[in-house]
Amino acid sequence: MNYSLHAGGKRIRPVLALACAEVLEAETDKVMPFACAIEMIHTYSLIHDDLPCMDNDDLRRGKPTNHKVYGEAIATLAGDGLLNLAFETILKQSQVSPNMTLAALSLIADSAGVEGMIGGQVIDIESEGKTIDAITLMTMHLHKTAALIMASAKVGALLGGGGREDLIVMEEFARYLGIAFQIKDDILDVAGSAENLGKTTGKDNASQKSTFVTIYGLEQSEKMLVDYTNKAVDALSKYGAKAEFLINLSKFLLDRDR
Amino acid sequence: MNYSLHAGGKRIRPVLALACAEVLEAETDKVMPFACAIEMIHTYSLIHDDLPCMDNDDLRRGKPTNHKVYGEAIATLAGDGLLNLAFETILKQSQVSPNMTLAALSLIADSAGVEGMIGGQVIDIESEGKTIDAITLMTMHLHKTAALIMASAKVGALLGGGGREDLIVMEEFARYLGIAFQIKDDILDVAGSAENLGKTTGKDNASQKSTFVTIYGLEQSEKMLVDYTNKAVDALSKYGAKAEFLINLSKFLLDRDR
Repeated sequence: MNYSLHAGGKRIRPVLALACAEVLEAETDKVMPFACAIEMIHTYSLIHDDLPCMDNDDLRRGKPTNHKVYGEAIATLAGDGLLNLAFETILKQSQVSPNMTLAALSLIADSAGVEGMIGGQVIDIESEGKTIDAITLMTMHLHKTAALIMASAKVGALLGGGGREDLIVMEEFARYLGIAFQIKDDILDVAGSAENLGKTTGKDNASQKSTFVTIYGLEQSEKMLVDYTNKAVDALSKYGAKAEFLINLSKFLLDRDR
Repeated sequence: MNYSLHAGGKRIRPVLALACAEVLEAETDKVMPFACAIEMIHTYSLIHDDLPCMDNDDLRRGKPTNHKVYGEAIATLAGDGLLNLAFETILKQSQVSPNMTLAALSLIADSAGVEGMIGGQVIDIESEGKTIDAITLMTMHLHKTAALIMASAKVGALLGGGGREDLIVMEEFARYLGIAFQIKDDILDVAGSAENLGKTTGKDNASQKSTFVTIYGLEQSEKMLVDYTNKAVDALSKYGAKAEFLINLSKFLLDRDR
C-alpha cells in the first residue's frame, strides 16, 4: 500500500479538492483527510488496473507495478486495503460535522462505485478487442476518469462551505478537466515518451484499444483538448482571480508531457 | 456482484447483526442496511480469495466461483464494487442519526481493513507453504474471520441501543463464535463432504496449509470447538432467555455439516 501510494504521481485529485476549497477562501486543513482518501482510491484503482488480468502493465509512475514487486495476491489485497483505508481515514480523521462528513463520504463513495469509476472500468474491460463508438468512449471516461475528479472538486467545494451553485460550477469545471485529462493521456500514449511518462507507451495501439486518438484522430483530439480545457477554465469565471491556481493547473495539465 | 451475493451462503454475519439488536429488544429495520453492507464485504472477500492468484478455488457455495463464470478481470471488479457498495448502501439507506451512522461505519471499516480482515488475509498469503505456529494461526483467524463477525455483533448491539457493556459482551461472544466457526470450517475441510459444503474439500491439505486440524489434531480441534462454543454461549448469560436465538445459532454452527 505504501509502495504505490508513495510512488509519486501528479496528485491531481487531492490537489483539486484542496484548491476548490481555497477558491472559496476556506481553510484546507479540514479537506486533507478527504483529499488523502481520494488519492488512496485512485491509487487502488491503478494497482488493480495494472494486474495481469486487467491491463497487465509492468510500469507505473516510473516504477515496477505493484504486482511486479509483491506478486498478484498481495497487489490485489493492497488495492482492497487502500479502498478500505480511504473510508477508515475519513471516519477517523474528519474534523467537520457528522452531516458534512456523511455528505462528503457519499460524494466519494458514489463516484468510486459501479455508477462511477468501477462502472467505467467495466465498460473498458468489456470493450477490449472491440471498436467502440464515441458515445461509449465518452460514457466510459466520464465514469472511469472524470467521476472521481468531479467528486474531488465537489468535496473541496462542499467542505469549503460552498452552496449548491458552487458545487454545480465545480462539477462542470471538473467534468471538462477530467475529459481533457483523458484526451491528453490518449495523446501522450501515441506521442509521448515512456521515459517522461513513467509507464509503457503505445499500449493502447498494441491492445487495439479505442481512444480519443483512434476515434477522432490526433489533430481533432488536440482541438478537443484545447476546447475542453478552455471550457473548464470558463466555468470558473465567477470566481475571478481567486481561481488563478485552478486555471494554472488546467493549463499545466494541457501542456504536460507526462 | 449479484451472482456472488445471491449465490446463497449461511448469512451468519447479517443474521448476527440483526439478532444482536433483537437481544436488546430493538427494531431490526434500522440494522438492515448495515447487515446488508457486512454481507457485501464478506462476499467481496470471498470473490477475491477465490481468485487464481489467491486460493484458486473453482467452487463456492455450490456454484462455480465468480471468476470461473465472468473471468478474472470482472471478478476483481465485482469484488471492488461490492466493497464500495457496502459503504454506498449504508450512506444512502441509514435511518439512524449521523453520529450513530458514523460509529457503525467505523466499526465495519476498521474490521474489514488492514487491521482486520485484510490483515488476516495477508498473514494467510504470507504463510503459504510454511508451517506456522498456534500464535500465528490464531492471530490470522482473529483478523481474517473473527474481526468481521465481531463487528457484525457490535454493530447490532450499537444500533440496538446497547451501551459500552453490551458491546464488550457481544464482542466477547462473537470472538469465541468466530474462532469456533473457523475451527469447524477446518474440521469440515478434512471430515466434511464437498456435496454438502458446496466447495472443494481437502484443499488445506493439498495446499499444505496450517489449520486448527494440522496444528492441534482432529480430536483436540473438536474439543476446542465445543469449548469456544460454550464460552460464546456463556458470554450471553446476562441476557437470559432473550439470547435464545443467538444460543441456538451458536449450537447450529457447532453441528453444521456445511
